[in-house]
Amino acid sequence: MTRSQLTEQVFLKKNYLCVGLDTDPSNIPVHLKSHPDPIFEFNKLIIDHTKDICVAYKLNTAFYEAMGGKGWDIMQRTVAYIPGSHFKIADAKRGDIGNTSSQYAKAFFEVLNFDAITVAPYMGEDSIRPFLEHENKWAIVLALTSNKGSSNFQQQKIGNVWLYEKVIKEVSNWGNPGNLMFVAGATKSEELAAIRKIIPDHYLLVPGVGFQGGNLQEVSKYGLNKECGLLVNVSRAIIYAGEKEDFYLESAAIARQYQNEMQLYFSKYSLEFEV
Amino acid sequence: MTRSQLTEQVFLKKNYLCVGLDTDPSNIPVHLKSHPDPIFEFNKLIIDHTKDICVAYKLNTAFYEAMGGKGWDIMQRTVAYIPGSHFKIADAKRGDIGNTSSQYAKAFFEVLNFDAITVAPYMGEDSIRPFLEHENKWAIVLALTSNKGSSNFQQQKIGNVWLYEKVIKEVSNWGNPGNLMFVAGATKSEELAAIRKIIPDHYLLVPGVGFQGGNLQEVSKYGLNKECGLLVNVSRAIIYAGEKEDFYLESAAIARQYQNEMQLYFSKYSLEFEV
Repeated sequence: MTRSQLTEQVFLKKNYLCVGLDTDPSNIPVHLKSHPDPIFEFNKLIIDHTKDICVAYKLNTAFYEAMGGKGWDIMQRTVAYIPGSHFKIADAKRGDIGNTSSQYAKAFFEVLNFDAITVAPYMGEDSIRPFLEHENKWAIVLALTSNKGSSNFQQQKIGNVWLYEKVIKEVSNWGNPGNLMFVAGATKSEELAAIRKIIPDHYLLVPGVGFQGGNLQEVSKYGLNKECGLLVNVSRAIIYAGEKEDFYLESAAIARQYQNEMQLYFSKYSLEFEV
Repeated sequence: MTRSQLTEQVFLKKNYLCVGLDTDPSNIPVHLKSHPDPIFEFNKLIIDHTKDICVAYKLNTAFYEAMGGKGWDIMQRTVAYIPGSHFKIADAKRGDIGNTSSQYAKAFFEVLNFDAITVAPYMGEDSIRPFLEHENKWAIVLALTSNKGSSNFQQQKIGNVWLYEKVIKEVSNWGNPGNLMFVAGATKSEELAAIRKIIPDHYLLVPGVGFQGGNLQEVSKYGLNKECGLLVNVSRAIIYAGEKEDFYLESAAIARQYQNEMQLYFSKYSLEFEV
């Protein structure tokens, strides 16, 4: 998917919601557990009832890998089921030497047909470049994550910048706003303003809204730019909203709440944007 | 596998060779391409003919993921085929927020039954701890990698230490030499001496000998400790040594060369070890 196609979806739907399909077999509604294909059925129902609301889906690969080869197959069928209009992210946090990253790019962009993959920057340029060489595909590089451990290394000073700022500065030279995004944790919304000064144009993927405690208004205020430039992911708060047979209606209701809130912020903050 | 079980294997076989099963379908001998199960058959023949030589096997997950769900299945069968006496490493370079790293630990330690997994440290403590909570299983944390991109972030100064030294110092507090190893790139053998001063006891996994140009003698001189403390991985130089029907004999011959060289260094350098 190109940047303009993504931005078009955002303007059409007036929100920047990404639904995280981090489907854990132990958390799906009880009645589905006797279904012959429970995880895919769960994902399918969530997609059916949120696709008119959100603009993107993110699959956390760990949850599928924990099911073995069967999980990999469910991931593949889920990606294939998501409409072509939606931006599809593999939250895989890969990154290895060049010839290995090329294999990961093949796995996620060609075999699984994701639009984007999250990538860890620790191994540097040659570990990231292979993800930038596929047409209309994206690398979403970890900059500042939303977990407690982000203080251990990301928030350490290299010279007079934080490591995560150094990552953004360096990595943004290797790609462009049409094939590169960054992960910026929502629990640190004040830092988003600083990140926006370094990269005013790039899309940011913001996890951590919902169960992780990020504040959507703050994130929107500091993260939005004139072309939106923001994807906010919500996983557990949406997909596990309901526990009964019509769980997906509660998921849709929560997604719609996010949509409404985002619509408000979108018109309010994206016009105000200036660096 | 416990540390003493691993060290026992090393002393028994008098080498610290890990064979990397980074099997690329386009690189296997031509005659295998018509085999109904070519990648597993290739791995099986390599294992059959190197298992009496080496002490460990490392599977680079990217090569299996690039084959989709089928690749995941081949990885599972390959791990199951490796004898219980050998240390089995998933070179997966995972790392995510706590509940996600727990899923990865489940995938690699429980579903796939690896002894160890390589982990990227960028997300900090809560991304690494879940891998340290499984009995007799190991996290092998990236410190200094052997690729060019290691200069971008790993070799940047935080205060008066390199980032990779900071990683080793911090992470070594979260585990112990019985559940934690570090990746230390072989192309920087002079840095191994400095790493050994920080962590005299931990095992180091050294990739990059062979095609990546690391020097085995230097690595051994600076990396070995009295209990060995070293696993040196060789992938392409061993598994792609031959191209004919008896390719595995050439693989075994190359593995034996490494074994002989290591035996020499082992008796020479591990006795000299002092911090």
